[in-house]
Amino acid sequence: MGENDESEIIEHHDDEEMEKTRTPRYHAHSFLESVASSEKDGYSSTQSSHRLLAYSDALISIIATVMILPVAHTKFQDNEELKQSIQALLTTKVAVYLMTFLIVTVAWAAHIRLFQVIKRIDDTLALLNLACMMLITVLPYTFSLMATFPSNTLGILLFCACVMVIGLIQATIVLYGFSRPFFLNDQIQMSGNQAYYKRHILEVIMRVPIMCLFASIFSFIYIQLSYIILAIVIFLPYISQCLKWIWNKAIGESKISQHFNLLFLHEPLSKERVEAFSDGVYAIVATLLILDICKDNVPDPSVVKEEFNDKLLAALQEYGPEYLAYFGSFVTIGLLWFVHHSLFLHVTKATRLMGLFNTFSLAFVGGLPLAYHLTHEFPRGSLNELEAVQISCVIIFFAGLFQLAIWVTALFTQHETLHPYVRYGGREHAFMLAKLSLYPCVALGSFAFTCILSRFSTSIFHMMEIGVPFAFILLRLLVRVVLAALRWLFCPVRNDLDSVPVEEEDSQLPINDIVT
Amino acid sequence: MGENDESEIIEHHDDEEMEKTRTPRYHAHSFLESVASSEKDGYSSTQSSHRLLAYSDALISIIATVMILPVAHTKFQDNEELKQSIQALLTTKVAVYLMTFLIVTVAWAAHIRLFQVIKRIDDTLALLNLACMMLITVLPYTFSLMATFPSNTLGILLFCACVMVIGLIQATIVLYGFSRPFFLNDQIQMSGNQAYYKRHILEVIMRVPIMCLFASIFSFIYIQLSYIILAIVIFLPYISQCLKWIWNKAIGESKISQHFNLLFLHEPLSKERVEAFSDGVYAIVATLLILDICKDNVPDPSVVKEEFNDKLLAALQEYGPEYLAYFGSFVTIGLLWFVHHSLFLHVTKATRLMGLFNTFSLAFVGGLPLAYHLTHEFPRGSLNELEAVQISCVIIFFAGLFQLAIWVTALFTQHETLHPYVRYGGREHAFMLAKLSLYPCVALGSFAFTCILSRFSTSIFHMMEIGVPFAFILLRLLVRVVLAALRWLFCPVRNDLDSVPVEEEDSQLPINDIVT
Repeated sequence: MGENDESEIIEHHDDEEMEKTRTPRYHAHSFLESVASSEKDGYSSTQSSHRLLAYSDALISIIATVMILPVAHTKFQDNEELKQSIQALLTTKVAVYLMTFLIVTVAWAAHIRLFQVIKRIDDTLALLNLACMMLITVLPYTFSLMATFPSNTLGILLFCACVMVIGLIQATIVLYGFSRPFFLNDQIQMSGNQAYYKRHILEVIMRVPIMCLFASIFSFIYIQLSYIILAIVIFLPYISQCLKWIWNKAIGESKISQHFNLLFLHEPLSKERVEAFSDGVYAIVATLLILDICKDNVPDPSVVKEEFNDKLLAALQEYGPEYLAYFGSFVTIGLLWFVHHSLFLHVTKATRLMGLFNTFSLAFVGGLPLAYHLTHEFPRGSLNELEAVQISCVIIFFAGLFQLAIWVTALFTQHETLHPYVRYGGREHAFMLAKLSLYPCVALGSFAFTCILSRFSTSIFHMMEIGVPFAFILLRLLVRVVLAALRWLFCPVRNDLDSVPVEEEDSQLPINDIVT
Repeated sequence: MGENDESEIIEHHDDEEMEKTRTPRYHAHSFLESVASSEKDGYSSTQSSHRLLAYSDALISIIATVMILPVAHTKFQDNEELKQSIQALLTTKVAVYLMTFLIVTVAWAAHIRLFQVIKRIDDTLALLNLACMMLITVLPYTFSLMATFPSNTLGILLFCACVMVIGLIQATIVLYGFSRPFFLNDQIQMSGNQAYYKRHILEVIMRVPIMCLFASIFSFIYIQLSYIILAIVIFLPYISQCLKWIWNKAIGESKISQHFNLLFLHEPLSKERVEAFSDGVYAIVATLLILDICKDNVPDPSVVKEEFNDKLLAALQEYGPEYLAYFGSFVTIGLLWFVHHSLFLHVTKATRLMGLFNTFSLAFVGGLPLAYHLTHEFPRGSLNELEAVQISCVIIFFAGLFQLAIWVTALFTQHETLHPYVRYGGREHAFMLAKLSLYPCVALGSFAFTCILSRFSTSIFHMMEIGVPFAFILLRLLVRVVLAALRWLFCPVRNDLDSVPVEEEDSQLPINDIVT
């Protein structure tokens, strides 16, 4: 792996060495000679964008989840009903979190699209990209200003200013990239029609900043209109994509082949970057609670001396529920990551709709620490605790459900998006399905149990936490047993074949019966 | 890139497809037939460990930097002298941060070594690794318990328990890996002497847990001894590596060729993972201040109404210094990342000593948000502010200096660790050196200026912040000018060759004069 990556990352060295091997130096230099001397130096300093994109993904994933912190740190009064505080939360903080998550994801998708055109970078592009990242990190703050002062134009103006400057920087990147063709995607580099691509990508990139320009102008006249424009900016890519996908399903995919040349611009999600972004979100969310524990849950020496007779263990037992909440959320997020990891191992290409479901799943994952935090905030057996547990179940359910939705979406276009190995009827298909449906099923089951046996809600929840990791370890065995049972039930004649599993046999398995 | 990566990540599919292409199925199955039927199923579910390692790197980098939060959130009283509060900080919190950073780096190095042996994973190994990660995330907390209650055995016992359980899990991973040979490194898989490798790697992995076992036993008898053992655990790998490196330099590298078979165990840092870990640290550190700003710096609507006559802009101007601190720290960390990125683009292999310097550099980078936070805590022109600015300069200086140290170390073994392109005398050498020395020089200069012109310390600091990004953009030009000037000074005869730059000429450049 190491060698392979190296050759990818330091492409220019290879180019350089390839040059050296061509002994008559004036041969085969048609491309290099076409660029001027100063540009040739630029060429020698080009780098693969691999690590720049990984770093951008890490930054963007942190920014996407940052607004969950004000939600998680909201203090609940014990005498207050959870419902009321939850309602207060829902109106502003959760909305801000979700909006931030979506807008940052839109910015991230634009970033992907940009760097699908610009494949190689140099120092100037790297620095421009860093400036762009810095402005993206400010977006969550402008959003919380908007939410706190909805009638003040400052929040929306700041937001629009950021988006417009980001747009200008990205346009600069595009112009700079097209002025030195060796930065570009090979496909564009080969094509004679670079001006057309340049105009197209500039249009795509400048669409959102121009809408923001209008939003900022309207904010002085009629601020509600600005908010509507912003909502369009956030949701339009998703809605248009959904409609397009439904349209394609209904009419057929004739239009795609027509626009084949622009295909890579319309398929904006590189699987690698979806993985990197998801990893970042899972990692930061998994550690959110330990950040709090490390900062706040070290008892004060004087308190330990006075209240607990210098017994540290007794003092730490006070924090028991916090530790439990941490372990619960880490395990759940770790296992959801594990499912995501297994899923994307089998996915060969991420379509936009899959990316959309992935975003929704990640947005729910981001809410998990908050939910777990809630479960230990309230006295045992109270109505609040029950509701906190149920909210946790709902969040886990939706996080898992959207992962399942990615899988179902992939199955619709399985010849493009899935490896032959896991396609409908393939050997790993049932196992993957079991993995994906484990969390939604368990969450739904726990929710139902807590409704019936509301007195034991916490115990049920803790049993779920402990049971699920073991379920994952034994899953392959369980699926095997279930498949064997089903096979035995439906085709008892072919029972003797079980001891000689061959690929050819698997494709004839009655998997249709299992799935439906 | 995409296709290349896919083929790496989903290795087992390729294997599977390769199998299918071999039409007579009973041919060439020598290896597959040597494993039992149940193991063959295991083989079909093996995955490349690529993404698991990326996720682990992300988690570990967040954990390494988490203890900077309690340091950054220490409140300073304005009437107090900074020196006193800094001293109070230094004794506990900064020490805890540095120790955490180092111990987590040791755990990370062990993790790298483990997964250099285990190259492919399955679901069980992935889940075991997640359990291991969860325990690593608890280490910082046990450290802060130790620091707050140094005479209590509980902290050290918890720490040792964690390390021992991590050791047991890692040993399980090794045993599980060796029981299914297709998980292993190809080199080990091919060699006949697997039992030897197994014993060796188990010894390496269990060394630290066994020391911790002794530490936990001694903690009941004489707690100071436990701390000494812990210090040995943390620093021994570094010290032994330094000594070994010096020894190798002095005696020659005959011993390495002798132990050639074990070489990959002694060269524990894969460049890819060093990059991933560094990216994680840079990303989390760059966003630390925005986390605070998003959480704390949204003014309360009632306060704005009463104190600022509903003028939001006036209320936000109160936070001006915070924004400035954020931009300053983001720019500095972004540019330090940029230098790191440029450096590792030219590095082909990271030796242990380079890894050590990288760790030190990252530890200082982690302190940057704190330093920038300090610069705006105090009234303008006060002695405290001057000292805060100077601390920032010192931290930037050391962060940059250790990056330079990586480069110098790489130059010592340049034929193994550097690309021919940037080796001593190579065309990019001077430029790389300029990039690396820019921050240390600027920091040193600012420090000197603040000592002389102490009244203008903040202005000098802000000018540095604004100037450095431009310096990076113009650096290539500057280096070119300096080189041309030097060339003109030292060899005016060959001036006419300047217009025809050829590689052969560059190697004869008077670069020795420039460097010395």
